[in-house]
Amino acid sequence: MGQRGNIMSFRPDIKVLDATLRDGGLVNSFQFSDEFVKDLYAANVKAGVDYMEFGYKADREMFDPDRFGKWKFCNDDDIYAIVGDNPTDMKIAVMADVGRTNYKRDIPEKANSPVDMYRIATYINTMPAAIEMVEYCHKQGYETTVNIMAISSAKERDIDTALYMLGESCVDGIYIVDSYGSIYPEEMREIADKYMELGEQYHKYIGVHSHNNQQLAFANTIEAISRGVSYADATVNSMGRGAGNCPLELLLGFLRNPKYNINSILQFIERHMLPLRATGVKWGYDIPYMLTGQLNRHPRSAIEYTAQGRTDYLDFYQSLMDRE
Amino acid sequence: MGQRGNIMSFRPDIKVLDATLRDGGLVNSFQFSDEFVKDLYAANVKAGVDYMEFGYKADREMFDPDRFGKWKFCNDDDIYAIVGDNPTDMKIAVMADVGRTNYKRDIPEKANSPVDMYRIATYINTMPAAIEMVEYCHKQGYETTVNIMAISSAKERDIDTALYMLGESCVDGIYIVDSYGSIYPEEMREIADKYMELGEQYHKYIGVHSHNNQQLAFANTIEAISRGVSYADATVNSMGRGAGNCPLELLLGFLRNPKYNINSILQFIERHMLPLRATGVKWGYDIPYMLTGQLNRHPRSAIEYTAQGRTDYLDFYQSLMDRE
Repeated sequence: MGQRGNIMSFRPDIKVLDATLRDGGLVNSFQFSDEFVKDLYAANVKAGVDYMEFGYKADREMFDPDRFGKWKFCNDDDIYAIVGDNPTDMKIAVMADVGRTNYKRDIPEKANSPVDMYRIATYINTMPAAIEMVEYCHKQGYETTVNIMAISSAKERDIDTALYMLGESCVDGIYIVDSYGSIYPEEMREIADKYMELGEQYHKYIGVHSHNNQQLAFANTIEAISRGVSYADATVNSMGRGAGNCPLELLLGFLRNPKYNINSILQFIERHMLPLRATGVKWGYDIPYMLTGQLNRHPRSAIEYTAQGRTDYLDFYQSLMDRE
Repeated sequence: MGQRGNIMSFRPDIKVLDATLRDGGLVNSFQFSDEFVKDLYAANVKAGVDYMEFGYKADREMFDPDRFGKWKFCNDDDIYAIVGDNPTDMKIAVMADVGRTNYKRDIPEKANSPVDMYRIATYINTMPAAIEMVEYCHKQGYETTVNIMAISSAKERDIDTALYMLGESCVDGIYIVDSYGSIYPEEMREIADKYMELGEQYHKYIGVHSHNNQQLAFANTIEAISRGVSYADATVNSMGRGAGNCPLELLLGFLRNPKYNINSILQFIERHMLPLRATGVKWGYDIPYMLTGQLNRHPRSAIEYTAQGRTDYLDFYQSLMDRE
């Protein structure tokens, strides 16, 4: 593997996926107004975004629909109400978590659905279940990806095995996911090279999904791209769990494909993201997330800590050290 | 040039410079309390920081001492009042701008000063004046660096000439400065390789000073380090002009030298930086700074815009485009 393209050129294989509703929904329990979702859809179309992820396909028997907004469940009818027949070049994606989706009941044939792509999120130990879901979604007519979460705490040998299993499967794309925001760019380049080697062998594209715990979400995304990774997740104003994700406005400003344009995203931030933040919904880089990122930990303790409004950073840091 | 060290090792040549008072002073007119400065000094010593920059050596005939705090001028007596005889391993740095320092009057011999290093900040067109200042400070007994600002808008041929002039001078170190926060990591690697080649030829070390307009200050700093750059600037909580700088707490968390420790910096943030922000002093990544960074412009228009509390991002973006 080596560098692909350069800073002045563009690679037509690159696709941008807006994950604002899905990863962002994790910080406001998916309580987005219809106006927000409609305007985001319109802004993404104008910006040249390639895929918009609407949320999760969670099982209503596992999660209480009174506690979560509708994008936790992504009923096709709710998506139709936003996009109609989606007469645009932008495709619609939905995420399905292994073990949290009743996919045989809830995922109909593609011919009767506004969804174009199912992304299967899995930890490395549930790879067989993920592949079963991929095979099902593929048979139903959807594009598919598998997003292997938390690879920074997985053994390299297990990642190799998982990649081999995915290579042999019918999945279209495989995502590098830095769930803890702990990966440094020089590590990201090595990981991207590993995934790309498998991808070229098996004709799978590789994607990247990053978190901003160490202010590296954008840097890691463009590093992965420079090694040949072609699908990049981002969220408007970086809205996402904990420290948030790669900001869409930074990514679109970097990519040189003339189809991308940040105007509508700037307007969307002004009209929707600033008011949303003003209601008290919190995300983005902050010291507690930095600490869990540096220590390669799940951000849950930092999320709790931040929600409590605490700022005794040194105590929090020491408490993280105690957990070993 | 190639990669130096790896993510598990440490390079003893690496030195960390805390520029909080100097770059941070640009956002509060250097109005730091003595308690703030004393506690920062103590925190830096505890954290293993190698150099602490106290501010600028500005000419009092050019800048009104009633409008700026004392760290705009860095009288030796004011530094002595904080550090005493500085019985620590941490050295004291001061920045002197070409054209804004009456150095022959204001910079005494090193034997009578608490300052260890003068850093000469210059645009590329005033290199002869910068070198005159370097020769003077060197003769007075100080360590010296030259920090060439705004290289992202300079011609490569001019940078080559400037580097050659510095190579031939008695300067100790040469800094890569990303004044506009517009440099991407793959560009930073090329720039670092160019500076390192000169540095190895002439036995000068190379440093890096970054801005966070595109959330790349930390990423660019560690990329430069990975190419052999050995002096890295950072500021506590990223306090610095506009989008701020590489956060010291991220940099220290990355470096593997056991002498570095973030505990005292976490405490300092809690005790001083949060209250400082609460008084309304503003810095850090935000959309207007992102836009000037993407367009490779000086942040001054974004600073004005932000100070006015405006959030009509699209209008601001379009106004930046009009200025060509």
